[in-house]
Amino acid sequence: MSQDIANTPPAPYYAVIFTNLRTAVDEGYGDMAEKMVALAAQQPGFLGVESARDGLGITVSYWKDLESIRAWKANAEHQVAQQLGHAKWYAAFKTRIARVERDYAF
Amino acid sequence: MSQDIANTPPAPYYAVIFTNLRTAVDEGYGDMAEKMVALAAQQPGFLGVESARDGLGITVSYWKDLESIRAWKANAEHQVAQQLGHAKWYAAFKTRIARVERDYAF
Repeated sequence: MSQDIANTPPAPYYAVIFTNLRTAVDEGYGDMAEKMVALAAQQPGFLGVESARDGLGITVSYWKDLESIRAWKANAEHQVAQQLGHAKWYAAFKTRIARVERDYAF
Repeated sequence: MSQDIANTPPAPYYAVIFTNLRTAVDEGYGDMAEKMVALAAQQPGFLGVESARDGLGITVSYWKDLESIRAWKANAEHQVAQQLGHAKWYAAFKTRIARVERDYAF
């Protein structure tokens, strides 16, 4: 997964905060997670992604607007991944759609 | 750090997405991080926190409103921690203030 701080443009933009707990089932999880990051990066309005896990997993993807987020959620390959995630890989998750109003960096 | 998905109330509420890369310096980092999570949890308007690190660190704290976030940023003990973080513990970070507009869970 991504090991960098995302280089997002000036606010406002949107964040999808995906927090999750995994099951013990692996079965293709790592490959699918990598594939989804690569596929997301090709979508219109994609601005970046940050990801970390130690027990709890947190993936934050950044998007130009709500329409870009809707289109990514509806993407056919992503739909398959979401269904597998629900059925096999995630014990629990929460997805939050948020508007980034300001940011600062060091 | 927190190993659970935060049990936040219905949206809208606010998220502070703090993404960071650590230096090699430890010197009290773990103790201070724990202390700051405990102190944040006592502040007015605090709704929860989620944290993960593998190389990249992501901590998302949730708050009732912008005023709660401003007060926490200005908290005297938190100010000391921020200064030490800047001077010793973080090679780079980005803080994003975002309004959570909707969420869904499984």
